[in-house]
Amino acid sequence: MKSPTDILGRLDEERRMVNLEIQKTLVGKPDRLYSAARHLCLAGGKKVRPILCILSCRAVGGATEQAVRTSAAIELIHTFTLIHDDIMDNDDMRRGKPSVHKTYGLPTAILAGDLLYAKGYEICDPKTVYILAKATSEICEGQELDMSFEERTDVSEADYMEMIEKKTAVLLRAAAESGAVIGGATEKQAKSLASYGLNLGLAFQMQDDILGVTADEKKLGKPVGSDIVEGKKSLIAIKAIQSLPEAEKKELLKILKKKNNPESEINTAVRLFHESGAIDYCRKKAEEYVKNAKDSLKDLPKTESREDLYRIADYVIKREL
Amino acid sequence: MKSPTDILGRLDEERRMVNLEIQKTLVGKPDRLYSAARHLCLAGGKKVRPILCILSCRAVGGATEQAVRTSAAIELIHTFTLIHDDIMDNDDMRRGKPSVHKTYGLPTAILAGDLLYAKGYEICDPKTVYILAKATSEICEGQELDMSFEERTDVSEADYMEMIEKKTAVLLRAAAESGAVIGGATEKQAKSLASYGLNLGLAFQMQDDILGVTADEKKLGKPVGSDIVEGKKSLIAIKAIQSLPEAEKKELLKILKKKNNPESEINTAVRLFHESGAIDYCRKKAEEYVKNAKDSLKDLPKTESREDLYRIADYVIKREL
Repeated sequence: MKSPTDILGRLDEERRMVNLEIQKTLVGKPDRLYSAARHLCLAGGKKVRPILCILSCRAVGGATEQAVRTSAAIELIHTFTLIHDDIMDNDDMRRGKPSVHKTYGLPTAILAGDLLYAKGYEICDPKTVYILAKATSEICEGQELDMSFEERTDVSEADYMEMIEKKTAVLLRAAAESGAVIGGATEKQAKSLASYGLNLGLAFQMQDDILGVTADEKKLGKPVGSDIVEGKKSLIAIKAIQSLPEAEKKELLKILKKKNNPESEINTAVRLFHESGAIDYCRKKAEEYVKNAKDSLKDLPKTESREDLYRIADYVIKREL
Repeated sequence: MKSPTDILGRLDEERRMVNLEIQKTLVGKPDRLYSAARHLCLAGGKKVRPILCILSCRAVGGATEQAVRTSAAIELIHTFTLIHDDIMDNDDMRRGKPSVHKTYGLPTAILAGDLLYAKGYEICDPKTVYILAKATSEICEGQELDMSFEERTDVSEADYMEMIEKKTAVLLRAAAESGAVIGGATEKQAKSLASYGLNLGLAFQMQDDILGVTADEKKLGKPVGSDIVEGKKSLIAIKAIQSLPEAEKKELLKILKKKNNPESEINTAVRLFHESGAIDYCRKKAEEYVKNAKDSLKDLPKTESREDLYRIADYVIKREL
């Protein structure tokens, strides 16, 4: 068995098929709008969600080809949320390039997101429309929660879990469930894969939060500590606020409240995250959710695709970007 | 037979059913997001698109109840495009109230639009997903064209027709076609109703452009002449530029190029629109498209719903708001 970090390489062929489908879909006029729509889609990205969809389809006996179009649709929907999030959060960088609104301006960036979302429904399997639409509604709810947390100092761990479930995990759930449905899953199998996707998504977001304050800036493709600058209430921030002695807690809250922090303040916040044990706490939580994800798969047939889903679960918390 | 302007009153019960469905759909948390999503949906609006969907369903032998949810979905999708358009066009007023971004700020307005769009796909008939998604992609293309025209002085009548077909007419086409499909139309009937919707939509947008410079501000629900301020290339503007003598043409182009025009300049532009014959030209064009719309229905069974579709066609160019 390959190491967890090899798993995405192992699935290069599937990723190539998804990319091809996306390229075919994003052809049209006016040029400027379609360029903006392609900007992020073809700027790399791990394609975790499409891969989940394809593997889930195969894990219940379906074929890759059945799931490719819906997989591409899910990546389009994901990219639509990234483009709009970057506008709302004022994020200038994404995947190592200027974000869409920085490159094409606000109006075309809004439209490019809208277009990607519409294209998603043009190409997805009709059986998956409700699953995808429900997930997207929840993503909107999650993003609104995330933004409202920026102004609050009383965000609890439960608040955070609800927020990341909606903002991130439901789309991974939808990806796995869609693949299952396309592949002809029994109701029980579809539920198992949905549960796998949800738990994986929770771990995925926690790891994202950890990488956002610990990763190498080049690998990350955006500035380290941007969550701190925006005052995002990640589980790391919540736990640190809860655990730190009064003086350091005050210092941290002041930094989180402020916008445009200098590097020295970002470094202080990161140091406090480490010292408070918040990062370790978050890592452990992420590991628990990965374990839950894997447990969800226990009744599925023993196939290579199920093995790949196990590997992806391990990868999610071991990845460095 | 009632006069054309009575037609919307005649269909009050259908409108009530659609409104109820929308209200049921837009319940959720966080409150702020759902309030923003309800802001425009429940601020009146003629509900022309849902009505088209329901009448088209009935015109091919279907029942109202079959089409109500998809009708509501179409209104949600329409409202989503209005919210995002108002952001892009910097429009502060809509339906006599401050626009969503003026009331809730940019981030929540973007999200409220996204949420409405997602909810549309949650409730529509799966058979209509492709029709609606295709139309929405085209709406995005049309909006990008509309914005790009603002900077151009060489926009032709054909350019304008392509733009309004995409920006406005395709959603009326999709509404009629969806209703037909839900009602069990033959392929030929679905095509006839799609053609009706498309032609009606073209006339509808032309009448909107006319009302935008001739209507009573109170009825319009937004400032008269906002298209002039934004330098929009309506058919009226295009025709006036083509027909006016050199000096007046220059004057008009200067006004259209400028932003934040004083009232005196808006009045000058409106006067030039009238004097050039551009408004009359546009009215005639709109009448032609209404005739095309009606002609599309000639092979449908003779029912009261078909009569209503005729009446709506007349209403579209006789309405004052």
